[in-house]
Amino acid sequence: MRAVIMQAAGDVRVEDRDDPVIVEPTDAIIRLAASCICGSDLWPYRGADKVDHSPMGHEYVGVVTEIGDDVQNVKVGDFVVGSFFASDNTCEICRAGYQSRCVHAVPMGRIGTQAEYARIPLADGTLVATPGQPDADLIPSLLAASDVLGTGWFAAVAAEAGPGKTVAVVGDGAVGLMGILAARELGAERIIAMSRHADRQALAREFGATDIVEERGDAGVARIKEMTGGLGAHSVIEAVGTHESMLQALRATRPGGHIGFVGVSHDVELPGRELFFSLVHLHGGPAPVRRFLPDLIQRIWDRQIDPGKVFDLTVPLEDAAEGYRAMDERRAIKVMLTVD
Amino acid sequence: MRAVIMQAAGDVRVEDRDDPVIVEPTDAIIRLAASCICGSDLWPYRGADKVDHSPMGHEYVGVVTEIGDDVQNVKVGDFVVGSFFASDNTCEICRAGYQSRCVHAVPMGRIGTQAEYARIPLADGTLVATPGQPDADLIPSLLAASDVLGTGWFAAVAAEAGPGKTVAVVGDGAVGLMGILAARELGAERIIAMSRHADRQALAREFGATDIVEERGDAGVARIKEMTGGLGAHSVIEAVGTHESMLQALRATRPGGHIGFVGVSHDVELPGRELFFSLVHLHGGPAPVRRFLPDLIQRIWDRQIDPGKVFDLTVPLEDAAEGYRAMDERRAIKVMLTVD
Repeated sequence: MRAVIMQAAGDVRVEDRDDPVIVEPTDAIIRLAASCICGSDLWPYRGADKVDHSPMGHEYVGVVTEIGDDVQNVKVGDFVVGSFFASDNTCEICRAGYQSRCVHAVPMGRIGTQAEYARIPLADGTLVATPGQPDADLIPSLLAASDVLGTGWFAAVAAEAGPGKTVAVVGDGAVGLMGILAARELGAERIIAMSRHADRQALAREFGATDIVEERGDAGVARIKEMTGGLGAHSVIEAVGTHESMLQALRATRPGGHIGFVGVSHDVELPGRELFFSLVHLHGGPAPVRRFLPDLIQRIWDRQIDPGKVFDLTVPLEDAAEGYRAMDERRAIKVMLTVD
Repeated sequence: MRAVIMQAAGDVRVEDRDDPVIVEPTDAIIRLAASCICGSDLWPYRGADKVDHSPMGHEYVGVVTEIGDDVQNVKVGDFVVGSFFASDNTCEICRAGYQSRCVHAVPMGRIGTQAEYARIPLADGTLVATPGQPDADLIPSLLAASDVLGTGWFAAVAAEAGPGKTVAVVGDGAVGLMGILAARELGAERIIAMSRHADRQALAREFGATDIVEERGDAGVARIKEMTGGLGAHSVIEAVGTHESMLQALRATRPGGHIGFVGVSHDVELPGRELFFSLVHLHGGPAPVRRFLPDLIQRIWDRQIDPGKVFDLTVPLEDAAEGYRAMDERRAIKVMLTVD
């Protein structure tokens, strides 16, 4: 099969690899319909993380081509969506809704899904079949559910976005934009996108933002306070993962409010005293996307939401290198890779 | 009136001060029945915070002796309990249950309640009258409600202690012990006190601890994991406020679990990456005791709980210096000061 391999920072190639095979009786093999490039794939691309020469990618939708002897919930031919952690969906942590920390969790990034085929461990717990074969125009949205939508949704749930709430969103990348969509779906009254890029502002409004704040840092916090009677937002979605963005989220939230943080922390050291006196609720981490998948798939199937619009560039798998360049140079928010 | 003044680190004296008077029409004056010494009073005592030569203390119960023209909810002669933040109890933050961050909050430590009399700002929002004049033996418990019980209760609520939950409590001071009592009252199934002091272990068991863990740090975390099928506690109460105790709490909590932290942060810098991957909920800060006061007073009045047992030394106000020494030398967990 063809698979995307990072040879070195900045050097992405599509190469031949052996087709994956069933290893455990709980595995399934899928033929990808599409995959995509994640913001986190840019860390090794930019030299901040090591490269491991195995296939890249952890987001996936596709058709089941083979199942292990123990797999019961999906069958060959099913169109399926899974998340970036394989999970058994039966352990105590999964049952509590935290499948990304399943006691048997397998990070899909270790397997790689920017490829024609992928082995999905714990298929029964991981994969959710769509109600039928999707129309082609639904595939981007189903792919979004695999990671960015599920992550933005978790952030909005963690931030307790809902009716009567003012929600501020720190970060205008794909996850932040999906957080806006989620906040709207959850019934938030006011959704403030913090963004200074015209194209992302437009998409933010399309997904449900009612207000845009261009200021960042303390100036951004001051604007949010101004807009909320001096109190701060009820709910803040943090979708960046830097020390500065976490402080911005912390300071923009009212006492008793909720922060849902999903930006993968890179340099964050939260000052305890400020956190203490803020009296906010803080919840976040690697999103348990599996918890939300059945609901998200149904909303997409019913054409109630169109998260696929977050993909502003689509290239064939063979052209993955161009996709990485476009993400790296910020010419694209989120790149979809199609597999024929 | 007589009032406790800290002249310098380690130098506590009881001196004459002018009786307080009504300043704002929303003020009340109370004659203290009792006050107490807080763990936080030891910070200036030990030279870690500056002294300000005004009366010490922020915990209080007593009888209303005078009210301002606008006060309607309490009257002269009422026996009242209040918390360490005066609050209007009507602003949006108060109505959301976060009275310790009321937009008009006044820290009672600035006023000082280790004295014969105290001025209580925002009396209508701050003070809660007991159903009648309390029996003398209820006074320690009512005083506990003013701070340590209310704080421990908030921690247990923030940690979502409840039926079916295993709750670990980091810190065996007065607040940690009250957190144990609260977790029991909230119906927790298993309550693990982390303590290595025999006297505090005994009190912990009396308040509801089902298990004791003597190990600290990573060894303590390993014990909690062992006791919870490798997962960690559902709920962790953090009642110390050091970097080490926060990490202990973070690591002892299962993914998706809840930490209620009420130890005033002194040297905490929370590592963002560890917090992120922990997937815990974090909530804490200065407890909005006012939210819980009516319920706590009723439980005390009905003799359903006996938090007053946390006071293991009682001295007259005049002997405050001895009370401070006993707390400083850890001869006492919590010292009550009586006013005749």
